[in-house]
Amino acid sequence: MTDSQTQGRLVIGTQRYSSWSLRGWLPVKLAGLPVAVEVIPLEGQGQTRALKQLSPNGCVPYLEHNGIQVWDSLSIAEYCAEYAPALWPADRAARAWARSISAEMHSGFRGVRSSFPMNLGRNSRALQTELDAETLKDVARIDRIWTETRTRYGQSGPYLFGADFGVADCMFAPVVYRFLSYAVEGLSDVSRAYMQAVAAHPLMQDWHAAADREPETWQLAFYESIP
Amino acid sequence: MTDSQTQGRLVIGTQRYSSWSLRGWLPVKLAGLPVAVEVIPLEGQGQTRALKQLSPNGCVPYLEHNGIQVWDSLSIAEYCAEYAPALWPADRAARAWARSISAEMHSGFRGVRSSFPMNLGRNSRALQTELDAETLKDVARIDRIWTETRTRYGQSGPYLFGADFGVADCMFAPVVYRFLSYAVEGLSDVSRAYMQAVAAHPLMQDWHAAADREPETWQLAFYESIP
Ligand SMILES: N[C@@H](CCC(=O)N[C@@H](CS)C(=O)NCC(=O)O)C(=O)O
Ligand SMILES: N[C@@H](CCC(=O)N[C@@H](CS)C(=O)NCC(=O)O)C(=O)O
Repeated sequence: MTDSQTQGRLVIGTQRYSSWSLRGWLPVKLAGLPVAVEVIPLEGQGQTRALKQLSPNGCVPYLEHNGIQVWDSLSIAEYCAEYAPALWPADRAARAWARSISAEMHSGFRGVRSSFPMNLGRNSRALQTELDAETLKDVARIDRIWTETRTRYGQSGPYLFGADFGVADCMFAPVVYRFLSYAVEGLSDVSRAYMQAVAAHPLMQDWHAAADREPETWQLAFYESIP
Repeated sequence: MTDSQTQGRLVIGTQRYSSWSLRGWLPVKLAGLPVAVEVIPLEGQGQTRALKQLSPNGCVPYLEHNGIQVWDSLSIAEYCAEYAPALWPADRAARAWARSISAEMHSGFRGVRSSFPMNLGRNSRALQTELDAETLKDVARIDRIWTETRTRYGQSGPYLFGADFGVADCMFAPVVYRFLSYAVEGLSDVSRAYMQAVAAHPLMQDWHAAADREPETWQLAFYESIP
């Protein structure tokens, strides 16, 4: 399955669409785990047959490293942080805060996730339909998380906890793409500067470039037809 | 807010119903953090006004310890594991597996969560309505997680990873109560023995006893009227 120079593989979905895959891929790259990346084209939300046999939860991202199986983006991130402790802040209070906002993203924000599906082919074009109350509440909470975290903990650099792009940034990275793609309004200046910094990170640029190279046949009507 | 012998507080919801609170309370108790426990009666799903001003995510569980704020059950569990490392398995592969199934519980199983709301007043009485496909799929996946984890990693004791009741057990503890309350069928012998062991744990007995002592006025029609 993997060549001799690697210690395993990271399986992800279509890079144009797969927000959870991005959340798993970023920490693997940041930790420098030498695994081969395999992309499985998604067939639709929860419909990709190839995934059902692949990973224990039937989803991507899915990591095999040194014979160890790891699935779910947040679990992969914690695994990577064991090799690269700078993925979490060194200070206990900041680390607790980082884990709390990461867990909040991991389990919540269904409004934002369903109203603004990630689509890297969509370029700063506002949704043509009205936003529901849940989505507006999610946008306001995310804006507050970014603003408050940057203000409290981010003074040493452009990311949530300063100079290091960490797990919390990984968890919110697809939200940055969504807010930019759908030209979401009403965010603070601090949040907007943060989004620019995340989008400019070299790994984000690599991911976006790979998504741009994906064959057109991988595109799905569900994502491309959102008004 | 807290008396002089404690180092903070853990805020939880009605113990009869609040499954996420149980997931946060168990690791705090297992780690022995000396915090005062405060119970806020839930007013209905997402409706409890007192919570909105309390915790950053407007939810329980919410922990303040030594001036550090921690919210979300999984983040609280990781925080506790920094004080009590035995909350995660010592072996790296087992730990990755434990984190993966914990993350799976944290972000998924919406079928089980909506079909079988936790209600410690309900005693082994099957649901009178038919189970939908999502719920059946969730039950099968949970049965497989318990059976496979116990078989692979649980030989040294009765819990998922053997002798220590850990974070993974905490995350699935409310599911044990749900499956017992709604007399869920089709589980393996391994899963059924595991459920008995979890329900018999002294902390689970303490939690259940506290729930039994809650005033009847805290009961909510939504939970009590499920057929
Ligand atoms: N909680 C999981 C969610 C993973 C997830 O839902 N992944 C999607 C792709 S972004 C998936 O694999 N869907 C299955 C499919 O499309 O068939 C995580 O954090 O990794
Ligand atoms: N992802 C959160 C979920 C927390 C949650 O949804 N808690 C419920 C109670 S079990 C809550 O606080 N609901 C708000 C309310 O009832 O008003 C966690 O893991 O802690």
